[in-house]
Amino acid sequence: MSSAPHPFDQALQLEPLAPDRARGHTSAAYANMVGPFGGITAAVMLQAVLRHAARQGEPIALTVNYAGPMADGAFEVVAEVTRTNRSTQHWQMRIVQGEEIVATGSAVLATRRETWSALEAPFPAVPAAASVEATPPIGRVRWTTAYDMRFVKGPMPRFGDQAMPQGDSESLQWIRDEPPRALDFASLAALCDVFFPRIFVHRPTEWVPIGTVTFTVYFHADEAALGRVGTDHVLGHARAHQFRNGFFDQAAQLWSASGELLAVTHQIVYFKA
Amino acid sequence: MSSAPHPFDQALQLEPLAPDRARGHTSAAYANMVGPFGGITAAVMLQAVLRHAARQGEPIALTVNYAGPMADGAFEVVAEVTRTNRSTQHWQMRIVQGEEIVATGSAVLATRRETWSALEAPFPAVPAAASVEATPPIGRVRWTTAYDMRFVKGPMPRFGDQAMPQGDSESLQWIRDEPPRALDFASLAALCDVFFPRIFVHRPTEWVPIGTVTFTVYFHADEAALGRVGTDHVLGHARAHQFRNGFFDQAAQLWSASGELLAVTHQIVYFKA
Repeated sequence: MSSAPHPFDQALQLEPLAPDRARGHTSAAYANMVGPFGGITAAVMLQAVLRHAARQGEPIALTVNYAGPMADGAFEVVAEVTRTNRSTQHWQMRIVQGEEIVATGSAVLATRRETWSALEAPFPAVPAAASVEATPPIGRVRWTTAYDMRFVKGPMPRFGDQAMPQGDSESLQWIRDEPPRALDFASLAALCDVFFPRIFVHRPTEWVPIGTVTFTVYFHADEAALGRVGTDHVLGHARAHQFRNGFFDQAAQLWSASGELLAVTHQIVYFKA
Repeated sequence: MSSAPHPFDQALQLEPLAPDRARGHTSAAYANMVGPFGGITAAVMLQAVLRHAARQGEPIALTVNYAGPMADGAFEVVAEVTRTNRSTQHWQMRIVQGEEIVATGSAVLATRRETWSALEAPFPAVPAAASVEATPPIGRVRWTTAYDMRFVKGPMPRFGDQAMPQGDSESLQWIRDEPPRALDFASLAALCDVFFPRIFVHRPTEWVPIGTVTFTVYFHADEAALGRVGTDHVLGHARAHQFRNGFFDQAAQLWSASGELLAVTHQIVYFKA
Protein backbone atom coordinates (compact mmCIF):
# COMPACT_ATOMS: atom_id res chain seq x y z
CA MET A 1 0.00 0.00 0.00
CA SER A 2 1.47 3.31 -1.09
CA SER A 3 1.85 6.16 1.35
CA ALA A 4 1.63 8.81 -1.38
CA PRO A 5 -1.51 10.93 -1.02
CA HIS A 6 -4.30 10.54 -3.59
CA PRO A 7 -3.82 12.95 -6.54
CA PHE A 8 -7.02 14.76 -5.50
CA ASP A 9 -5.62 15.40 -2.02
CA GLN A 10 -2.34 16.53 -3.56
CA ALA A 11 -4.21 18.98 -5.78
CA LEU A 12 -6.00 20.39 -2.72
CA GLN A 13 -2.87 20.90 -0.61
CA LEU A 14 -2.85 24.48 0.67
CA GLU A 15 -0.03 26.12 2.59
CA PRO A 16 -1.37 28.69 5.08
CA LEU A 17 -0.06 32.23 4.57
CA ALA A 18 -2.53 34.08 6.82
CA PRO A 19 -5.86 33.18 8.45
CA ASP A 20 -7.75 33.98 5.21
CA ARG A 21 -5.04 33.21 2.65
CA ALA A 22 -3.21 30.09 1.47
CA ARG A 23 -0.89 29.10 -1.33
CA GLY A 24 -1.61 26.20 -3.66
CA HIS A 25 -0.22 24.83 -6.89
CA THR A 26 -2.00 23.56 -9.98
CA SER A 27 -1.81 19.80 -10.40
CA ALA A 28 -0.64 18.02 -13.55
CA ALA A 29 -3.11 15.21 -12.77
CA TYR A 30 -6.03 17.66 -13.22
CA ALA A 31 -4.72 19.61 -16.21
CA ASN A 32 -7.23 20.58 -18.87
CA MET A 33 -6.33 21.42 -22.48
CA VAL A 34 -5.41 24.91 -21.21
CA GLY A 35 -4.98 25.48 -17.47
CA PRO A 36 -6.65 23.31 -14.82
CA PHE A 37 -9.96 21.39 -14.94
CA GLY A 38 -12.65 23.74 -13.62
CA GLY A 39 -13.85 21.16 -11.12
CA ILE A 40 -10.50 21.11 -9.33
CA THR A 41 -10.50 24.92 -9.13
CA ALA A 42 -13.96 24.77 -7.55
CA ALA A 43 -12.77 22.08 -5.12
CA VAL A 44 -9.76 24.20 -4.12
CA MET A 45 -12.02 27.20 -3.39
CA LEU A 46 -14.33 25.06 -1.28
CA GLN A 47 -11.35 23.49 0.49
CA ALA A 48 -10.08 26.96 1.42
CA VAL A 49 -13.37 27.45 3.29
CA LEU A 50 -13.51 23.97 4.82
CA ARG A 51 -9.96 24.22 6.25
CA HIS A 52 -10.56 27.70 7.70
CA ALA A 53 -10.54 27.97 11.49
CA ALA A 54 -13.77 30.01 11.45
CA ARG A 55 -15.70 27.39 9.48
CA GLN A 56 -19.09 26.56 10.91
CA GLY A 57 -21.25 23.84 9.34
CA GLU A 58 -21.35 21.87 6.11
CA PRO A 59 -21.60 23.26 2.56
CA ILE A 60 -25.07 24.02 1.21
CA ALA A 61 -24.08 26.05 -1.86
CA LEU A 62 -20.96 26.89 -3.85
CA THR A 63 -20.65 29.31 -6.77
CA VAL A 64 -17.43 29.76 -8.73
CA ASN A 65 -16.92 32.40 -11.42
CA TYR A 66 -14.09 31.64 -13.84
CA ALA A 67 -12.91 35.19 -14.39
CA GLY A 68 -9.86 34.56 -16.52
CA PRO A 69 -7.35 31.94 -17.62
CA MET A 70 -5.44 30.23 -14.80
CA ALA A 71 -1.79 29.53 -15.51
CA ASP A 72 -0.12 26.27 -14.51
CA GLY A 73 1.87 26.94 -11.35
CA ALA A 74 1.38 28.59 -7.97
CA PHE A 75 -1.73 30.51 -6.91
CA GLU A 76 -3.12 32.08 -3.77
CA VAL A 77 -6.64 31.41 -2.56
CA VAL A 78 -8.41 33.83 -0.24
CA ALA A 79 -11.49 32.81 1.78
CA GLU A 80 -13.25 35.38 3.95
CA VAL A 81 -16.32 35.04 6.16
CA THR A 82 -18.92 37.54 5.04
CA ARG A 83 -21.38 36.80 7.80
CA THR A 84 -22.04 34.15 10.43
CA ASN A 85 -25.65 33.62 11.48
CA ARG A 86 -27.10 31.18 13.99
CA SER A 87 -27.31 28.28 11.53
CA THR A 88 -25.74 29.57 8.29
CA GLN A 89 -22.40 31.09 7.35
CA HIS A 90 -21.59 33.06 4.18
CA TRP A 91 -18.15 33.12 2.53
CA GLN A 92 -16.48 34.90 -0.36
CA MET A 93 -13.43 33.47 -2.07
CA ARG A 94 -11.00 34.36 -4.82
CA ILE A 95 -7.98 32.85 -6.51
CA VAL A 96 -5.19 35.20 -7.55
CA GLN A 97 -2.04 34.73 -9.59
CA GLY A 98 0.25 37.74 -9.27
CA GLU A 99 -1.97 40.80 -9.76
CA GLU A 100 -4.70 38.92 -11.63
CA ILE A 101 -7.93 37.60 -10.15
CA VAL A 102 -8.52 34.34 -12.02
CA ALA A 103 -11.61 33.17 -10.11
CA THR A 104 -14.10 34.48 -7.60
CA GLY A 105 -16.66 32.56 -5.63
CA SER A 106 -19.07 32.33 -2.75
CA ALA A 107 -20.18 29.55 -0.45
CA VAL A 108 -22.88 29.03 2.12
CA LEU A 109 -22.41 26.61 4.99
CA ALA A 110 -25.15 25.48 7.35
CA THR A 111 -25.65 23.45 10.45
CA ARG A 112 -28.21 20.93 9.25
CA ARG A 113 -30.67 19.05 11.37
CA GLU A 114 -33.08 16.25 10.56
CA THR A 115 -36.43 17.47 9.29
CA TRP A 116 -39.31 16.32 7.18
CA SER A 117 -37.73 15.45 3.83
CA ALA A 118 -39.03 14.45 0.40
CA LEU A 119 -37.31 13.47 -2.82
CA GLU A 120 -39.32 14.61 -5.82
CA ALA A 121 -37.00 14.06 -8.80
CA PRO A 122 -37.13 10.50 -10.13
CA PHE A 123 -33.96 8.40 -9.97
CA PRO A 124 -33.06 7.60 -13.60
CA ALA A 125 -33.51 4.02 -14.77
CA VAL A 126 -29.97 2.84 -15.54
CA PRO A 127 -27.95 -0.37 -15.47
CA ALA A 128 -25.57 -0.75 -12.50
CA ALA A 129 -22.10 0.80 -12.86
CA ALA A 130 -20.45 -2.64 -12.80
CA SER A 131 -22.35 -3.66 -15.93
CA VAL A 132 -21.36 -0.56 -17.97
CA GLU A 133 -18.01 -0.42 -19.70
CA ALA A 134 -15.55 2.27 -18.60
CA THR A 135 -14.78 4.86 -21.30
CA PRO A 136 -11.06 5.31 -21.98
CA PRO A 137 -9.77 8.76 -20.96
CA ILE A 138 -9.11 11.39 -23.61
CA GLY A 139 -5.34 11.51 -24.01
CA ARG A 140 -4.87 15.22 -24.51
CA VAL A 141 -7.30 16.10 -21.69
CA ARG A 142 -5.29 14.88 -18.74
CA TRP A 143 -7.95 15.33 -16.02
CA THR A 144 -10.13 12.69 -17.70
CA THR A 145 -7.60 10.09 -16.47
CA ALA A 146 -8.51 11.15 -12.89
CA TYR A 147 -12.05 9.80 -13.29
CA ASP A 148 -13.65 6.48 -14.09
CA MET A 149 -16.57 7.34 -16.40
CA ARG A 150 -19.15 4.83 -17.64
CA PHE A 151 -21.65 6.23 -20.09
CA VAL A 152 -25.22 5.03 -20.28
CA LYS A 153 -26.11 7.88 -22.64
CA GLY A 154 -24.42 10.91 -24.21
CA PRO A 155 -20.67 10.14 -24.21
CA MET A 156 -18.00 12.49 -25.52
CA PRO A 157 -18.31 12.27 -29.32
CA ARG A 158 -15.54 11.46 -31.78
CA PHE A 159 -15.78 14.51 -33.98
CA GLY A 160 -16.18 13.94 -37.66
CA ASP A 161 -16.08 10.17 -37.28
CA GLN A 162 -19.55 9.68 -38.78
CA ALA A 163 -20.91 11.62 -35.82
CA MET A 164 -24.45 10.51 -35.02
CA PRO A 165 -26.31 13.26 -33.18
CA GLN A 166 -28.53 11.76 -30.48
CA GLY A 167 -30.98 14.66 -30.90
CA ASP A 168 -30.42 16.23 -27.50
CA SER A 169 -27.62 17.00 -25.02
CA GLU A 170 -28.56 14.49 -22.31
CA SER A 171 -25.82 12.46 -20.64
CA LEU A 172 -26.25 9.72 -18.07
CA GLN A 173 -22.97 8.49 -16.68
CA TRP A 174 -21.51 6.64 -13.73
CA ILE A 175 -18.48 8.46 -12.35
CA ARG A 176 -15.96 8.14 -9.54
CA ASP A 177 -12.43 9.24 -8.73
CA GLU A 178 -9.68 7.14 -10.34
CA PRO A 179 -8.03 5.71 -8.28
CA PRO A 180 -11.08 5.35 -6.00
CA ARG A 181 -11.31 7.79 -3.08
CA ALA A 182 -14.03 8.16 -0.43
CA LEU A 183 -16.47 10.90 -1.48
CA ASP A 184 -16.29 14.19 0.43
CA PHE A 185 -17.66 17.68 -0.19
CA ALA A 186 -14.65 18.83 -2.21
CA SER A 187 -14.62 15.78 -4.49
CA LEU A 188 -18.40 16.00 -4.93
CA ALA A 189 -17.96 19.63 -6.05
CA ALA A 190 -15.35 18.53 -8.59
CA LEU A 191 -17.57 15.67 -9.82
CA CYS A 192 -20.26 18.27 -10.57
CA ASP A 193 -18.01 19.63 -13.33
CA VAL A 194 -16.98 16.39 -15.07
CA PHE A 195 -19.71 16.57 -17.72
CA PHE A 196 -18.33 17.10 -21.21
CA PRO A 197 -19.57 20.30 -22.86
CA ARG A 198 -23.24 19.83 -23.74
CA ILE A 199 -22.68 21.40 -27.15
CA PHE A 200 -20.49 18.41 -28.10
CA VAL A 201 -23.27 15.97 -27.19
CA HIS A 202 -25.98 17.96 -28.95
CA ARG A 203 -23.84 18.77 -31.99
CA PRO A 204 -21.06 16.18 -32.31
CA THR A 205 -20.08 17.26 -35.80
CA GLU A 206 -17.50 19.85 -34.88
CA TRP A 207 -15.17 20.66 -31.98
CA VAL A 208 -15.42 24.32 -30.89
CA PRO A 209 -13.66 26.26 -28.12
CA ILE A 210 -15.73 26.41 -24.91
CA GLY A 211 -15.23 27.70 -21.37
CA THR A 212 -17.37 27.59 -18.24
CA VAL A 213 -18.23 31.13 -17.13
CA THR A 214 -19.87 30.39 -13.79
CA PHE A 215 -20.74 27.20 -11.92
CA THR A 216 -22.99 26.50 -8.94
CA VAL A 217 -23.47 23.45 -6.75
CA TYR A 218 -26.30 22.96 -4.24
CA PHE A 219 -25.41 20.18 -1.80
CA HIS A 220 -28.24 17.93 -0.66
CA ALA A 221 -25.80 15.41 0.85
CA ASP A 222 -24.53 15.79 4.38
CA GLU A 223 -21.52 13.95 5.87
CA ALA A 224 -23.63 10.87 6.58
CA ALA A 225 -24.86 10.67 2.98
CA LEU A 226 -21.30 11.06 1.68
CA GLY A 227 -20.24 8.25 4.01
CA ARG A 228 -22.93 5.97 2.56
CA VAL A 229 -21.41 6.48 -0.91
CA GLY A 230 -17.80 5.90 0.13
CA THR A 231 -15.78 4.94 -2.95
CA ASP A 232 -18.78 3.83 -5.04
CA HIS A 233 -19.66 5.36 -8.38
CA VAL A 234 -22.20 8.18 -8.43
CA LEU A 235 -24.66 8.70 -11.27
CA GLY A 236 -24.49 11.99 -13.14
CA HIS A 237 -27.39 13.23 -15.25
CA ALA A 238 -26.76 16.37 -17.30
CA ARG A 239 -28.46 18.31 -20.05
CA ALA A 240 -28.73 21.80 -21.52
CA HIS A 241 -31.88 23.86 -21.86
CA GLN A 242 -30.58 26.11 -24.63
CA PHE A 243 -27.59 27.05 -26.76
CA ARG A 244 -27.89 30.68 -27.79
CA ASN A 245 -25.62 33.35 -29.22
CA GLY A 246 -22.39 32.15 -27.66
CA PHE A 247 -23.62 30.63 -24.39
CA PHE A 248 -25.34 27.45 -23.25
CA ASP A 249 -26.53 26.40 -19.82
CA GLN A 250 -26.14 22.99 -18.20
CA ALA A 251 -28.31 21.50 -15.45
CA ALA A 252 -27.23 18.28 -13.75
CA GLN A 253 -28.04 16.03 -10.82
CA LEU A 254 -25.67 13.68 -8.98
CA TRP A 255 -27.14 10.55 -7.39
CA SER A 256 -25.83 7.75 -5.23
CA ALA A 257 -26.28 4.23 -6.60
CA SER A 258 -28.92 3.68 -3.92
CA GLY A 259 -31.01 6.60 -5.24
CA GLU A 260 -30.05 9.43 -2.89
CA LEU A 261 -29.88 12.83 -4.62
CA LEU A 262 -26.48 14.16 -3.50
CA ALA A 263 -26.24 17.46 -5.37
CA VAL A 264 -27.77 19.55 -8.13
CA THR A 265 -25.49 21.73 -10.22
CA HIS A 266 -25.75 24.37 -12.91
CA GLN A 267 -23.35 26.23 -15.14
CA ILE A 268 -23.33 28.57 -18.08
CA VAL A 269 -20.68 28.03 -20.71
CA TYR A 270 -19.22 30.21 -23.46
CA PHE A 271 -18.92 28.64 -26.88
CA LYS A 272 -17.39 29.92 -30.10
CA ALA A 273 -19.42 28.70 -33.06
CA MET B 1 -51.21 59.52 -18.14
CA SER B 2 -49.35 59.71 -14.85
CA SER B 3 -45.81 61.04 -14.69
CA ALA B 4 -44.98 59.06 -11.54
CA PRO B 5 -42.33 56.40 -12.21
CA HIS B 6 -43.37 52.75 -12.15
CA PRO B 7 -43.00 51.25 -8.63
CA PHE B 8 -40.27 48.95 -9.98
CA ASP B 9 -38.24 51.92 -11.23
CA GLN B 10 -38.80 53.68 -7.91
CA ALA B 11 -37.50 50.61 -6.05
CA LEU B 12 -34.38 50.62 -8.26
CA GLN B 13 -33.54 54.30 -7.78
CA LEU B 14 -29.92 54.58 -6.68
CA GLU B 15 -28.19 57.78 -5.63
CA PRO B 16 -24.47 57.71 -6.57
CA LEU B 17 -22.06 58.09 -3.64
CA ALA B 18 -18.85 57.03 -5.40
CA PRO B 19 -18.04 55.25 -8.67
CA ASP B 20 -18.64 51.82 -7.05
CA ARG B 21 -21.17 52.79 -4.39
CA ALA B 22 -24.75 54.05 -4.36
CA ARG B 23 -27.52 54.56 -1.84
CA GLY B 24 -30.97 53.06 -2.21
CA HIS B 25 -34.06 52.63 -0.12
CA THR B 26 -36.31 49.62 0.35
CA SER B 27 -39.70 50.02 -1.31
CA ALA B 28 -43.04 49.47 0.41
CA ALA B 29 -44.45 48.19 -2.91
CA TYR B 30 -42.04 45.23 -2.78
CA ALA B 31 -42.21 44.46 0.95
CA ASN B 32 -42.24 40.80 1.95
CA MET B 33 -43.58 39.49 5.27
CA VAL B 34 -40.23 40.51 6.78
CA GLY B 35 -37.91 42.83 4.83
CA PRO B 36 -38.01 43.15 1.04
CA PHE B 37 -38.97 40.59 -1.63
CA GLY B 38 -35.76 38.76 -2.59
CA GLY B 39 -36.36 39.43 -6.28
CA ILE B 40 -36.19 43.19 -5.78
CA THR B 41 -32.93 42.84 -3.84
CA ALA B 42 -31.50 40.84 -6.75
CA ALA B 43 -32.74 43.47 -9.21
CA VAL B 44 -31.11 46.27 -7.19
CA MET B 45 -27.77 44.43 -7.21
CA LEU B 46 -27.97 43.91 -10.95
CA GLN B 47 -29.01 47.54 -11.46
CA ALA B 48 -25.92 48.68 -9.53
CA VAL B 49 -23.85 46.91 -12.20
CA LEU B 50 -25.93 48.04 -15.19
CA ARG B 51 -25.76 51.73 -14.19
CA HIS B 52 -21.98 51.60 -13.56
CA ALA B 53 -19.82 53.64 -15.94
CA ALA B 54 -17.45 50.69 -16.45
CA ARG B 55 -20.23 48.33 -17.55
CA GLN B 56 -19.46 46.39 -20.70
CA GLY B 57 -22.05 44.06 -22.22
CA GLU B 58 -25.32 42.46 -21.20
CA PRO B 59 -25.94 40.18 -18.22
CA ILE B 60 -25.25 36.46 -18.68
CA ALA B 61 -25.35 35.38 -15.04
CA LEU B 62 -26.34 36.78 -11.66
CA THR B 63 -25.89 35.17 -8.24
CA VAL B 64 -27.22 36.73 -5.04
CA ASN B 65 -26.50 35.37 -1.56
CA TYR B 66 -28.99 36.51 1.08
CA ALA B 67 -26.56 36.76 3.98
CA GLY B 68 -28.85 38.22 6.63
CA PRO B 69 -32.12 40.01 7.21
CA MET B 70 -32.51 43.34 5.39
CA ALA B 71 -34.24 46.07 7.37
CA ASP B 72 -36.78 48.40 5.78
CA GLY B 73 -35.04 51.68 5.06
CA ALA B 74 -31.83 52.92 3.46
CA PHE B 75 -29.03 50.68 2.20
CA GLU B 76 -25.81 51.04 0.25
CA VAL B 77 -25.00 48.85 -2.72
CA VAL B 78 -21.41 48.35 -3.85
CA ALA B 79 -20.57 47.00 -7.32
CA GLU B 80 -16.94 46.41 -8.28
CA VAL B 81 -15.43 45.10 -11.51
CA THR B 82 -13.36 42.02 -10.74
CA ARG B 83 -12.04 41.56 -14.23
CA THR B 84 -12.76 42.76 -17.77
CA ASN B 85 -11.90 40.40 -20.61
CA ARG B 86 -12.33 40.85 -24.33
CA SER B 87 -15.95 39.67 -24.38
CA THR B 88 -16.86 39.07 -20.73
CA GLN B 89 -16.81 41.16 -17.57
CA HIS B 90 -16.96 39.86 -13.97
CA TRP B 91 -18.48 41.82 -11.08
CA GLN B 92 -18.86 41.43 -7.34
CA MET B 93 -21.57 43.23 -5.41
CA ARG B 94 -22.75 43.64 -1.85
CA ILE B 95 -25.54 45.42 0.01
CA VAL B 96 -24.72 46.88 3.40
CA GLN B 97 -26.83 48.46 6.12
CA GLY B 98 -24.65 50.17 8.72
CA GLU B 99 -21.88 47.72 9.57
CA GLU B 100 -23.80 44.65 8.38
CA ILE B 101 -23.46 42.92 5.03
CA VAL B 102 -27.00 41.81 4.20
CA ALA B 103 -26.35 40.40 0.71
CA THR B 104 -23.42 39.54 -1.53
CA GLY B 105 -23.46 38.70 -5.18
CA SER B 106 -21.67 38.29 -8.45
CA ALA B 107 -22.56 38.96 -12.06
CA VAL B 108 -21.08 38.17 -15.44
CA LEU B 109 -21.73 40.42 -18.43
CA ALA B 110 -20.88 39.55 -22.01
CA THR B 111 -20.87 41.07 -25.44
CA ARG B 112 -23.05 38.60 -27.31
CA ARG B 113 -22.99 37.92 -31.00
CA GLU B 114 -25.22 35.82 -33.21
CA THR B 115 -24.12 32.19 -33.43
CA TRP B 116 -25.55 28.78 -34.14
CA SER B 117 -28.32 28.38 -31.57
CA ALA B 118 -30.64 25.56 -30.49
CA LEU B 119 -33.47 25.36 -28.00
CA GLU B 120 -33.64 21.93 -26.43
CA ALA B 121 -36.09 22.32 -23.54
CA PRO B 122 -39.73 21.92 -24.65
CA PHE B 123 -42.07 24.90 -24.28
CA PRO B 124 -44.78 23.77 -21.85
CA ALA B 125 -48.27 23.20 -23.24
CA VAL B 126 -50.40 25.87 -21.54
CA PRO B 127 -53.46 27.97 -22.30
CA ALA B 128 -52.77 31.60 -23.26
CA ALA B 129 -52.41 34.09 -20.39
CA ALA B 130 -55.59 35.92 -21.46
CA SER B 131 -57.64 32.78 -20.90
CA VAL B 132 -56.33 32.12 -17.37
CA GLU B 133 -57.83 33.95 -14.41
CA ALA B 134 -55.53 36.25 -12.42
CA THR B 135 -54.94 35.12 -8.83
CA PRO B 136 -55.70 37.80 -6.24
CA PRO B 137 -52.59 38.99 -4.39
CA ILE B 138 -51.91 37.79 -0.85
CA GLY B 139 -52.82 40.68 1.41
CA ARG B 140 -50.10 40.35 4.01
CA VAL B 141 -47.39 39.75 1.37
CA ARG B 142 -47.30 43.19 -0.21
CA TRP B 143 -44.98 42.39 -3.15
CA THR B 144 -47.56 40.00 -4.59
CA THR B 145 -49.63 43.07 -5.53
CA ALA B 146 -46.72 44.14 -7.79
CA TYR B 147 -47.30 41.14 -10.09
CA ASP B 148 -50.13 39.77 -12.18
CA MET B 149 -49.99 35.98 -11.66
CA ARG B 150 -52.13 33.48 -13.52
CA PHE B 151 -51.69 29.89 -12.41
CA VAL B 152 -52.02 26.97 -14.77
CA LYS B 153 -50.67 24.61 -12.10
CA GLY B 154 -49.33 24.79 -8.55
CA PRO B 155 -50.78 28.01 -7.05
CA MET B 156 -50.05 29.23 -3.53
CA PRO B 157 -52.14 26.94 -1.29
CA ARG B 158 -54.67 27.98 1.31
CA PHE B 159 -53.20 26.23 4.29
CA GLY B 160 -55.48 23.94 6.25
CA ASP B 161 -58.46 24.74 4.02
CA GLN B 162 -58.91 21.09 2.94
CA ALA B 163 -55.49 21.36 1.33
CA MET B 164 -55.25 18.98 -1.63
CA PRO B 165 -51.61 18.10 -2.29
CA GLN B 166 -50.97 17.90 -6.03
CA GLY B 167 -48.27 15.27 -5.44
CA ASP B 168 -45.32 17.39 -6.54
CA SER B 169 -44.00 20.96 -6.35
CA GLU B 170 -44.48 21.94 -10.00
CA SER B 171 -45.90 25.38 -10.81
CA LEU B 172 -46.77 26.75 -14.23
CA GLN B 173 -47.79 30.38 -14.13
CA TRP B 174 -48.13 33.41 -16.34
CA ILE B 175 -46.56 36.47 -14.72
CA ARG B 176 -45.94 40.13 -15.46
CA ASP B 177 -45.37 43.36 -13.61
CA GLU B 178 -48.51 45.03 -12.27
CA PRO B 179 -49.00 47.69 -13.56
CA PRO B 180 -47.48 46.43 -16.84
CA ARG B 181 -43.90 47.53 -17.60
CA ALA B 182 -41.65 46.65 -20.54
CA LEU B 183 -39.38 43.73 -19.60
CA ASP B 184 -35.70 44.52 -18.99
CA PHE B 185 -32.83 42.61 -17.40
CA ALA B 186 -33.55 43.89 -13.88
CA SER B 187 -37.26 43.05 -14.01
CA LEU B 188 -36.50 39.63 -15.53
CA ALA B 189 -34.15 38.96 -12.59
CA ALA B 190 -36.92 39.89 -10.16
CA LEU B 191 -39.45 37.72 -12.03
CA CYS B 192 -37.10 34.76 -11.51
CA ASP B 193 -37.86 34.98 -7.77
CA VAL B 194 -41.68 35.28 -7.84
CA PHE B 195 -42.31 31.56 -7.38
CA PHE B 196 -43.95 30.75 -4.07
CA PRO B 197 -41.87 28.43 -1.88
CA ARG B 198 -41.92 24.95 -3.42
CA ILE B 199 -42.50 23.37 -0.01
CA PHE B 200 -45.93 25.04 0.12
CA VAL B 201 -46.89 23.52 -3.24
CA HIS B 202 -45.56 20.07 -2.37
CA ARG B 203 -46.90 20.11 1.18
CA PRO B 204 -49.83 22.56 1.40
CA THR B 205 -50.93 21.35 4.80
CA GLU B 206 -48.86 23.68 6.93
CA TRP B 207 -47.17 27.07 6.65
CA VAL B 208 -43.54 27.02 7.78
CA PRO B 209 -40.87 29.75 7.89
CA ILE B 210 -38.66 29.76 4.79
CA GLY B 211 -35.88 31.95 3.39
CA THR B 212 -33.92 31.88 0.15
CA VAL B 213 -30.23 31.36 0.89
CA THR B 214 -28.78 31.88 -2.59
CA PHE B 215 -30.28 32.55 -6.01
CA THR B 216 -28.83 32.37 -9.51
CA VAL B 217 -30.15 33.54 -12.89
CA TYR B 218 -28.66 32.60 -16.26
CA PHE B 219 -29.92 34.99 -18.93
CA HIS B 220 -30.60 33.54 -22.37
CA ALA B 221 -32.44 36.69 -23.48
CA ASP B 222 -30.60 39.62 -24.98
CA GLU B 223 -31.99 43.16 -25.43
CA ALA B 224 -33.74 42.15 -28.65
CA ALA B 225 -35.49 39.18 -27.00
CA LEU B 226 -36.59 41.41 -24.09
CA GLY B 227 -37.96 43.88 -26.63
CA ARG B 228 -40.03 41.16 -28.29
CA VAL B 229 -41.72 40.48 -24.92
CA GLY B 230 -42.42 44.10 -24.07
CA THR B 231 -45.25 44.23 -21.52
CA ASP B 232 -46.59 40.73 -22.25
CA HIS B 233 -46.84 38.00 -19.65
CA VAL B 234 -43.98 35.53 -19.39
CA LEU B 235 -44.48 31.88 -18.49
CA GLY B 236 -42.74 30.61 -15.37
CA HIS B 237 -42.18 26.91 -14.78
CA ALA B 238 -40.74 25.94 -11.39
CA ARG B 239 -40.17 22.79 -9.38
CA ALA B 240 -37.99 21.34 -6.63
CA HIS B 241 -35.77 18.29 -6.91
CA GLN B 242 -35.59 17.59 -3.19
CA PHE B 243 -36.53 18.84 0.28
CA ARG B 244 -33.99 17.57 2.78
CA ASN B 245 -33.00 18.37 6.35
CA GLY B 246 -33.87 22.04 6.31
CA PHE B 247 -33.19 22.98 2.68
CA PHE B 248 -34.87 22.54 -0.68
CA ASP B 249 -33.74 23.53 -4.15
CA GLN B 250 -35.82 25.17 -6.89
CA ALA B 251 -35.19 25.01 -10.63
CA ALA B 252 -37.22 27.24 -12.96
CA GLN B 253 -37.43 28.43 -16.54
CA LEU B 254 -38.95 31.69 -17.82
CA TRP B 255 -40.41 31.70 -21.31
CA SER B 256 -41.91 34.28 -23.61
CA ALA B 257 -45.43 33.58 -24.84
CA SER B 258 -43.95 32.92 -28.28
CA GLY B 259 -41.78 30.11 -26.90
CA GLU B 260 -38.41 31.85 -26.43
CA LEU B 261 -36.52 30.64 -23.35
CA LEU B 262 -35.57 33.92 -21.63
CA ALA B 263 -33.83 32.71 -18.47
CA VAL B 264 -33.18 29.68 -16.29
CA THR B 265 -32.93 30.19 -12.54
CA HIS B 266 -32.06 28.18 -9.44
CA GLN B 267 -32.17 28.75 -5.73
CA ILE B 268 -31.73 26.88 -2.47
CA VAL B 269 -34.09 27.72 0.33
CA TYR B 270 -34.01 27.20 4.08
CA PHE B 271 -37.16 25.79 5.67
CA LYS B 272 -38.07 25.15 9.28
CA ALA B 273 -40.16 22.00 9.55
